[in-house]
Amino acid sequence: MSIAPLRQQTSAPAGSGLAARLAVREGLHRGPTAGLAPGYVQGNLAILPQALAADFLRFCQLNPKPCPLIGTSAPGDCRVPALGEDIDIRTDLSRYRVWKNGELVAEPEDVREFWRDDLVSFVIGCSFSFEEALTAEGIELRHIAQRCNVPMYRTSIATAAAGPFHGPMVVSMRPLKPADAIRAVQITTRFPCVHGAPVHIGKPESIGITDVMKPDYGDAVEVRDDELPVFWACGVTPQSVIATVKPEFCITHYPGAMLVTDRKNTEFAIM
Amino acid sequence: MSIAPLRQQTSAPAGSGLAARLAVREGLHRGPTAGLAPGYVQGNLAILPQALAADFLRFCQLNPKPCPLIGTSAPGDCRVPALGEDIDIRTDLSRYRVWKNGELVAEPEDVREFWRDDLVSFVIGCSFSFEEALTAEGIELRHIAQRCNVPMYRTSIATAAAGPFHGPMVVSMRPLKPADAIRAVQITTRFPCVHGAPVHIGKPESIGITDVMKPDYGDAVEVRDDELPVFWACGVTPQSVIATVKPEFCITHYPGAMLVTDRKNTEFAIM
Repeated sequence: MSIAPLRQQTSAPAGSGLAARLAVREGLHRGPTAGLAPGYVQGNLAILPQALAADFLRFCQLNPKPCPLIGTSAPGDCRVPALGEDIDIRTDLSRYRVWKNGELVAEPEDVREFWRDDLVSFVIGCSFSFEEALTAEGIELRHIAQRCNVPMYRTSIATAAAGPFHGPMVVSMRPLKPADAIRAVQITTRFPCVHGAPVHIGKPESIGITDVMKPDYGDAVEVRDDELPVFWACGVTPQSVIATVKPEFCITHYPGAMLVTDRKNTEFAIM
Repeated sequence: MSIAPLRQQTSAPAGSGLAARLAVREGLHRGPTAGLAPGYVQGNLAILPQALAADFLRFCQLNPKPCPLIGTSAPGDCRVPALGEDIDIRTDLSRYRVWKNGELVAEPEDVREFWRDDLVSFVIGCSFSFEEALTAEGIELRHIAQRCNVPMYRTSIATAAAGPFHGPMVVSMRPLKPADAIRAVQITTRFPCVHGAPVHIGKPESIGITDVMKPDYGDAVEVRDDELPVFWACGVTPQSVIATVKPEFCITHYPGAMLVTDRKNTEFAIM
């Protein structure tokens, strides 16, 4: 059963999460959502058949740093009202990836034609929220300055397994001067729903990264002599784990095309 | 004017700050106070003539990380009631250092004979408090495991000057595995009154330390390959600064012989 979401909104405050989502839904905004609706939480998406949903939910609960769950749907329901009353998860991302048995089969801008009554949506916190907090405190992030993707790495840190879901934690890396690294630990500690404090700092080889200039995902950025590489658990982890499990069917967001929600980043700060 | 403190206490709860202080006052405990009265705040001591006191107070206010002031006295008053109603700062430390024009002139167990009506006492938070919090969380501190003093270094980080008081910040160093270093930032952030979060991590050369195995004070401890050196602002900073100023008269605590107070470490946690 697919329940039609509310559609009465035809306008929304400029710069709001709702305005961004409506622009995406109407096809007026295409491509990455970075920088859209500043101040609003964006989320990673994973949609799985109900048969796998309970295990995946448990996987997220066991691994809150890489998989901080900020919203879920009922089976077959395309709404996620906790993140926005009008959200239709089938249309509100600018691009999706559709997987069958671990194979990428489509990259559509709308997944209504793929929808099934047994699908459960999981929205997972994303580093955009804590990056906004870091930037607001004057900490420059190199991948943003260089307008590229943050470098990400598969590590030797194992996630806690749940049913078929298991595999290495993926981390993102931001080079920071030591005093900024300390401040970044303090700032991101306030945001446990969006990966929280770093999981590692300074010794990439200790977590199985042999060359920080060769990320597994995203783009390489320079780590200068007076900087430390600082590593955060990354929302790519669940996608990497799902790729290992090869579920018969699965939908994820297209990299960079996140769900823009009505929740504010500041709401997610625990203090 | 020297006001006699209350002396009616003849006993105190075992293990309390008061019991430790009474044992010191009566000459029953001599030597270092590390490990005495677990859970109670201990403090560094600096006693200066009133002519210098206002500048020193301002120096502490400007440099709260190395000089977190937790108690002061009125001029000539040997009491510090904010830290313990009965404290007599002249007798309640197990050993003192007395300085004239920057020269060490005595290391007595009691400074009553040196007391002057213009002396002002400053009690400054000490790392024992945050070390207790780290240890309680299962983070092993090498200098404690090896029963030696924490290594300390003069850095290239300048303190903010106030009157004649100026000079480099002194830091203490604890080697930690990266995940423990991140946790240690979180834990010590809660204790701004006892040096707070680290000031540096991982790049000793960036703060003017050429060889971590050659500390300026304390004992060298090994930094293993999978560890980062983590640096906290240190309560030796004010003593180092006072040594530069060479005041005509000054009393400090003897290294390791701290003032044991009635305040609990947990009271100093901001959250």
